[in-house]
Amino acid sequence: MIRVAICAPSASFPRELVAPVEAVAARFPGVELHFHPQCFAAEGHFAGPDDMRLEALLDCANDPAFDAVWFARGGYGSNRIAGEAMARMGDAARHKLYLGSSDGGYLLGALYRHGIGQPVHAPMPLDVKRGRGEEAIARVLGWLSGDNAGIEAGLDATPTVAFNLMTLAMLTGTTLMPDLSHHVVLVEEVSEHLYAIDRLFFHLSETLPRDLAGLRLGRVSDVPENDRPFGTEAEEIARQWCHKAGIPFLGRADIGHDHANAIVPFGPIDRASPLGIPGFTLGKRDAGA
Amino acid sequence: MIRVAICAPSASFPRELVAPVEAVAARFPGVELHFHPQCFAAEGHFAGPDDMRLEALLDCANDPAFDAVWFARGGYGSNRIAGEAMARMGDAARHKLYLGSSDGGYLLGALYRHGIGQPVHAPMPLDVKRGRGEEAIARVLGWLSGDNAGIEAGLDATPTVAFNLMTLAMLTGTTLMPDLSHHVVLVEEVSEHLYAIDRLFFHLSETLPRDLAGLRLGRVSDVPENDRPFGTEAEEIARQWCHKAGIPFLGRADIGHDHANAIVPFGPIDRASPLGIPGFTLGKRDAGA
Repeated sequence: MIRVAICAPSASFPRELVAPVEAVAARFPGVELHFHPQCFAAEGHFAGPDDMRLEALLDCANDPAFDAVWFARGGYGSNRIAGEAMARMGDAARHKLYLGSSDGGYLLGALYRHGIGQPVHAPMPLDVKRGRGEEAIARVLGWLSGDNAGIEAGLDATPTVAFNLMTLAMLTGTTLMPDLSHHVVLVEEVSEHLYAIDRLFFHLSETLPRDLAGLRLGRVSDVPENDRPFGTEAEEIARQWCHKAGIPFLGRADIGHDHANAIVPFGPIDRASPLGIPGFTLGKRDAGA
Repeated sequence: MIRVAICAPSASFPRELVAPVEAVAARFPGVELHFHPQCFAAEGHFAGPDDMRLEALLDCANDPAFDAVWFARGGYGSNRIAGEAMARMGDAARHKLYLGSSDGGYLLGALYRHGIGQPVHAPMPLDVKRGRGEEAIARVLGWLSGDNAGIEAGLDATPTVAFNLMTLAMLTGTTLMPDLSHHVVLVEEVSEHLYAIDRLFFHLSETLPRDLAGLRLGRVSDVPENDRPFGTEAEEIARQWCHKAGIPFLGRADIGHDHANAIVPFGPIDRASPLGIPGFTLGKRDAGA
């Protein structure tokens, strides 16, 4: 049995979406979901105050009964607790999967930097509310159950990470930022103007390591209309900045704020390994018990 | 006579706004405005392609007939040409004032980093279209004519800079970023959600030098409504992040995307000096001719 703890380090998870998530989970008898009560807390923008979100995350991460911690949703805020969370993660936290995307990228990045557990870019419980959202949930639960089909295509021994573009730009230069030298970086974005996309690529092209293995562009969706057309589409923007920075542009990626968002375990990938992750074993907890 | 060259390194300047700007300028007989034809060019989001904007900026900067270069407006794009502009600025460019704000901050920052001329956070010609916008134009022209009343209050020998918050966040870590050690930093923002303000302060609190002399908050205006209240106002957000980073929060500043936007010459200020800038003399051009 794979036990997954769900908490909300960013924004609040609507209680009425638990049932639809559980309904999908019922098809995966090898996986057990545990919603931490903090998921449903709300204070202003966040799923409870910083302290509450931090403690809930640590409850999940430091409990040896769980194999994985799944971020309920994004929505901004995990950066506010990520630094302290890393400092307080114990031994049980080091043998877990951490799954999420969008704003959850702050935690994935920080975990990767600190070598704590296995960060995984993945759909999140809130995705259930999207059209075909059950597919996103099933992709994660299927992967946890041994089906590597949901892993992003084209990943190999070259270590890879995946981030929301804004999240990655805000991470650069901070104490949460992992060293991405020799990595392939996948980025996606939602609800940002194309001029903002261009601006974020400017920032990243200047601040990412010079020896990046390459960049792939996920979906750039729900671009708001501006008072004038930008004049260049998202892929061309990415190509231009990669070219300017000497970063190989490696094409598109199947990630984004949508039901099709693929799974990207951070680091090197071997699709023949369990979970596609060479050297990682789920259930170390059981072995050690 | 102070000769001011106006170009548009970011977005296009509406030709119909030349007359209202000139009407204000008529009250300042010691100042002469020269709109570079590139101001009115448009290609997609920008005031012409990168090459055209770059050449126009260099025309203005490298022409010894001008005492000042005034950015016609912001709107995004000066970051795309700032690096190459710095590399091609000649001797005449080094004895000039450079005036602008908002997206123009990329150039002000890069000029300050390279010690080229005197960067000045200031209203821009496009501000004429605001309510009481003539006051913004008059503030700049009055200052060029010897009236230091338009300079931000409270500036002193501690070097100061002023930036749009997003612009500064995108500058950090790049080859355009000046060393702001021991500086007071003034920031303002417009049309950003409070969660985005919080996110930008997170980034800056982690990436600005530890030995900043302090931060002052300008106006944070036109904050869009979100689906839920953020829960903290802009000043409290700034205070919290400054506290966390050990940066002295020094109160408010009179800058912002509005008619009242104050003038902030980068560096130390002595209000008794010409232009408030110790050691800077306008018209070195004439002395050398």
